[in-house]
This record gives sequence, C-alpha cells and structure tokens, in this order.
Amino acid sequence: MASNTVEKTSVTLLGLGAMGSALARTWLAAGHAVTVWNRTPARSAALAAEGAEVADSAAAAVAANSLVVVCLLDDASVDEALAGADLAGRDLVNLTTSTPAQARARAQSARELGARYLDGGIMAVPPMIGVPEAGGFIFYSGARELFERHRETLGVPAGATYVGDDAGFAALHDVALLSAMYGMFAGIAHAFALIRKEDIDPASLAPLLTGWLVAMAPSAHQTADQLRSGDYTKGVVSNLAMQVAGTPTFLSTAEQQGVSPELLSPYFKLMRRRLAEGSAEEDLTGVIDLLLR
Amino acid sequence: MASNTVEKTSVTLLGLGAMGSALARTWLAAGHAVTVWNRTPARSAALAAEGAEVADSAAAAVAANSLVVVCLLDDASVDEALAGADLAGRDLVNLTTSTPAQARARAQSARELGARYLDGGIMAVPPMIGVPEAGGFIFYSGARELFERHRETLGVPAGATYVGDDAGFAALHDVALLSAMYGMFAGIAHAFALIRKEDIDPASLAPLLTGWLVAMAPSAHQTADQLRSGDYTKGVVSNLAMQVAGTPTFLSTAEQQGVSPELLSPYFKLMRRRLAEGSAEEDLTGVIDLLLR
Ligand SMILES: NC(=O)c1ccc[n+]([C@@H]2O[C@H](COP(=O)([O-])OP(=O)(O)OC[C@H]3O[C@@H](n4cnc5c(N)ncnc54)[C@H](OP(=O)(O)O)[C@@H]3O)[C@@H](O)[C@H]2O)c1
Ligand SMILES: NC(=O)c1ccc[n+]([C@@H]2O[C@H](COP(=O)([O-])OP(=O)(O)OC[C@H]3O[C@@H](n4cnc5c(N)ncnc54)[C@H](OP(=O)(O)O)[C@@H]3O)[C@@H](O)[C@H]2O)c1
Repeated sequence: MASNTVEKTSVTLLGLGAMGSALARTWLAAGHAVTVWNRTPARSAALAAEGAEVADSAAAAVAANSLVVVCLLDDASVDEALAGADLAGRDLVNLTTSTPAQARARAQSARELGARYLDGGIMAVPPMIGVPEAGGFIFYSGARELFERHRETLGVPAGATYVGDDAGFAALHDVALLSAMYGMFAGIAHAFALIRKEDIDPASLAPLLTGWLVAMAPSAHQTADQLRSGDYTKGVVSNLAMQVAGTPTFLSTAEQQGVSPELLSPYFKLMRRRLAEGSAEEDLTGVIDLLLR
Repeated sequence: MASNTVEKTSVTLLGLGAMGSALARTWLAAGHAVTVWNRTPARSAALAAEGAEVADSAAAAVAANSLVVVCLLDDASVDEALAGADLAGRDLVNLTTSTPAQARARAQSARELGARYLDGGIMAVPPMIGVPEAGGFIFYSGARELFERHRETLGVPAGATYVGDDAGFAALHDVALLSAMYGMFAGIAHAFALIRKEDIDPASLAPLLTGWLVAMAPSAHQTADQLRSGDYTKGVVSNLAMQVAGTPTFLSTAEQQGVSPELLSPYFKLMRRRLAEGSAEEDLTGVIDLLLR
C-alpha cells in the first residue's frame, strides 16, 4: 500500500489494439511502469519504443504485476488470452466490451481462480483517451474497495465512474448509454433524410438539430422522476394524446419527402398502444413499460 | 412603415388554445394591440380581461389588422376559420403545425386571395413562450422581405429563425427537429427499460444519459460535412464494420434484460444493409441514403 504513495502502480495490459495502445500510452506518459502483451507481437514494438516492457506471453504479462488490465476484442478473446495465466492474487480489470451476463460470469470465474475483479465499460474512442477535456470516461463495477484502491491509476486514461458492486453494471450502463445514442443517431438520420432532396444545406440543419437535441436531452430527468414515483402524469406538458395526435404530421412529411418511416414508426406504434390502454394524460414514459416482457 | 417605429404593430390572432393564448399574452405584455378570435368564445374572455380586443368572427378579426397570425389545431381548422374572411392585402402568418405540402398549398391560396404569407413552426411548448431563457424559437419561411418587416413583432413570443423563401421549409425544419427528438426519446426509453428490473436508480442513470447524449449530439456536424462532400469516410473514428460488430452486444443485453429490441433493431438493420453494400470504412452516414426511396 505504501508503495502507492511513493511510486505509481505498475500495470500489466493485455491487448494492444486501437484502444489498448491508447491506454498503454497514457499510463506510460503518466509515469506508470507498463508491461504489455499482444497476440500479434508486431503491435508491441511501438509501445516498447515508448518505454513499455514487452512480455512473451499473456501468462508472463499476468505474472509481472498484480494489476492486470485486459482490453481485447470480445469476451471469447479474453478466454483465449487468459487460458494459460495464473490469476491467483491478481486484481483483474476487464475493459473488453461485454454484456452484463458475460461480465458477471467473468467475475465469478475470476473469484474461482483467486483473483479480484472489476469490470469496465469504455465510453470513449481512442482519440479521447488521455484527453480529459474530450469528456470520455470509463464505467467500473465490482467491489468498491478494489475500485478505490486503483482509482488513481484507473483515472489516468479517462475519468473513472463507479456504478455499483454488481460486476454487470458497468456493461449495463455502457450498453444503456450507447443504445440511447443509436436511437438519437436514428433520429438524426431521419432528419437529414427529410431535407436530402431539398435545397437546404445539411451544414445549416446540423447546428439547429444539435441545439434542439441538447435542449431536449435533459427531459430524461423528468422521465426518471416519473419512473421512480410511478406517476407518469407528473409534470407533463404535452400529454400522450396530444403527442399521438401530432404523429400523422411526421409520417406524412416523411412520405412527402420520400423518406421511409421505418426508424420512427416503431416508437409511434408504442405511443399509440399506450394511448389505447387509456393513458391519454401521461407523458411518454409508459412506452418504457411496453418494452419489457 | 413609419408607424412601426413610433408604435408597435397591431396583431390579429386567430385561435386561443394553449399556444394561441400564450402568444396573445406576450404581445399584450409587450404593448402590442391584439385582436383575438376563438371558435369557442369562452376562451376569449380571459384575454379580454388582459386587454385584448375580442372579435365576433374570424372575418371581423381579419378585418381589424393587416398582420394576421393563425394558431389553430391543424390545417383543416385553418380552412374552416378562414372560410369567410377577406384576406386581400393581409400579411398572413400561419403558426399552425402543418406538413411542408400543406404550408406550400396555404401559401399558394393566400397568394390567390391577395395576401402575403409566412409559415411558422413553433419549437416550444406554451410555458416557454415569452420566456427567452427557455430557449424556444419559431421557424419562419416565405418571402424574406415579409419576415424582415415583421421580425420585431414575430420575435416577441420566442426567437424567430428564418429558414428560406420556400413556404414549406419552416414545417420541414420543424418536423426534422421533432423527428430527431423522437428518435432520441426512443433511445432513452430503451436505456431506461434496460435498467428497469435492476437495483439502479433511474435518477442516477438520467444525468449519465443526458451527459452522453449532449456530448454525442454534435456528431451531426460531421454527418452534415460528409453529406455535403459525399465522402462518408471523412473523419471516421469508428467505422461501420466496427459498429456493426458491436451490435450483438446491444441486442444480447436487451435480451438478457427482457427488453424488446424493436426500437433499436431497425437502425441496426440499416447499418448491416449498408455494410453488406461494401461500405465497411464509412461512418454511419450511408444509412441516410437507405431511407430515401
Ligand atoms: N475502439 C473504440 O472506439 C472502442 C470504444 C469503446 C470500447 N472499445 C472496446 O475496447 C476493446 C478493444 O477495442 P479495440 O478498438 O482496441 O479493438 P481492435 O483495435 O480491433 O483490437 C483488438 C485487440 O484484441 C486482440 N484479439 C482479438 N482476438 C484475440 C484473441 N482471440 N486472442 C487474443 N487477442 C485477441 C487483438 O490482437 P491482434 O493484434 O493479435 O489482432 C487486438 O489486440 C473492445 O472490446 C472494444 O469494444 C473500443
Ligand atoms: N401546445 C404545444 O405544445 C404546441 C407546441 C408547438 C406547436 N403547437 C401547435 O400550435 C397549434 C395550436 O396548438 P394548441 O396547443 O394551442 O392546441 P389546443 O390547445 O388544442 O387549441 C386548439 C385551437 O384550435 C381551435 N380549433 C380547433 N378546431 C377548430 C376549427 N375547426 N375551427 C376553428 N378553430 C378550431 C380551438 O378552438 P376551440 O377553443 O373552439 O376548441 C383552439 O383555439 C397546433 O397546430 C399545434 O400543433 C403546439
């Protein structure tokens, strides 16, 4: 423990893809000793030149340090890479994208192998790693004590956000945010499609779109408040009946502009279903319950 | 014209629903003389008490002032309300939500009746009207000269944003922004559904979601840039192949959490289709072209 205060924690990193390489560089730049391993050795050479220790095998890399960070392609590649390694006594931090179930299973197997486990979900692309002002961050879940012990080291590549001791929660938060983002991207795609054949510069629509989405995103706070209270009419401004009444304008406009409604209609369909269930005075929150089965 | 500089333009307003009443109040508060008409007379009483002149018929209201603002339920109600009115020489500003085609047809019929025409799309809910810091605004399209003449008056209830002389463009911008917003809401609904059965407080997810969406919304600028240049690989960080490779994690997580994928899968399907067309190195922008038929 004392060594943490006098010198920086040494890190083992398995995986030098785009993300792993970016992580390794920020730790090296921050003065951490870093031992790296990558399946294809060529990728390690650049890091060696920047001061990393290169291990011959994943097992040797795991043996080198008690903090072992893994950033590989997917869950199956983690299985492969760790197959021959002795994890006993290691603090395993897995930043490989996974589902909550994969993360929980990994936590379980780590425990059985005598390792402590944190799962991570990276909310950043490689160019944002080591650039705090870019706003990227990493979700962590697992034992809080383990997170606190490595908080400083884990905070080097990007902000570290702890979301609970259930090992699956980092992945769940990661997937939740990215899923919401793809929904937004679908909406943005539909909006650009609507103007595609008109004499409207997409670059003049972009700031209007961005500004509107940024202004409307905080409605998630009201949604959360309604979910907590169970009262979906709380603070409603435009109720479900009014909003459903507005949907034909969106669909006819898509039709007029020659745009397929396929990205919008599933949501409108759920709005109509909820309305048909007698929820005219509610906000849009009831749609969430219709998604659960 | 000179009267504009010495006294404020008098306004006729047809329609005192939630939105029309809010509009009327801000003009009255700003010192404009306002003549109102509403199909159901009871709604006019409150406005009369606040200083509005109440007309007995839509025709009388139209006769009272040269600037005539209409804010009724829908396009059909505008037809009904204006049926007996003499629009010759009037400056008609229609803030009723409509499709671009309805707006263009309205502009055409106004011209035939001897009126000048501006169409508007209100990007605000009634509580945001007259509250500049709430960030609401109104899109306007039609003759720029007409917009400039009334810019000050039109800017009283909410910021006035002119988007072109095609009368349909205000409606098109309105629908584009709201469509994008519903896409984002669909994404937010999916995200909340994912955590619904877990011990995660929706109120702790909300700021994470909002922060992430606000950070990602400006990607619309890069999309616009790619659409303009026709080069969808420009500035790509995560290419289509990588993003498609990530989609099974989102779908399996939805499955694990008992959440229907119906709000996400249409977008993922288009991503896969575009990838299959040989666009691995592109950004997500190609999906927009697949929406057009
Ligand atoms: N890039 C991003 O924008 C981003 C953002 C957030 C999260 N992530 C996550 O970060 C992780 C790594 O992403 P990346 O962008 O670095 O991917 P990448 O550039 O494709 O690199 C993949 C890495 O996994 C290794 N690998 C693949 N299969 C393997 C196997 N069977 N055994 C051992 N090693 C194997 C590769 O080794 P070789 O060099 O030998 O092929 C390489 O080191 C992924 O889980 C990804 O979802 C990435
Ligand atoms: N409220 C919002 O959040 C919001 C936001 C953006 C845009 N808008 C748009 O603003 C417009 C007005 O919305 P609102 O919220 O004020 O609606 P509202 O509260 O439902 O009021 C509807 C108005 O239309 C009148 N009307 C309906 N059918 C009519 C007919 N056949 N003939 C004459 N008048 C008729 C109603 O008169 P009666 O009093 O006689 O029923 C009332 O004045 C709509 O186009 C809406 O899409 C509203």
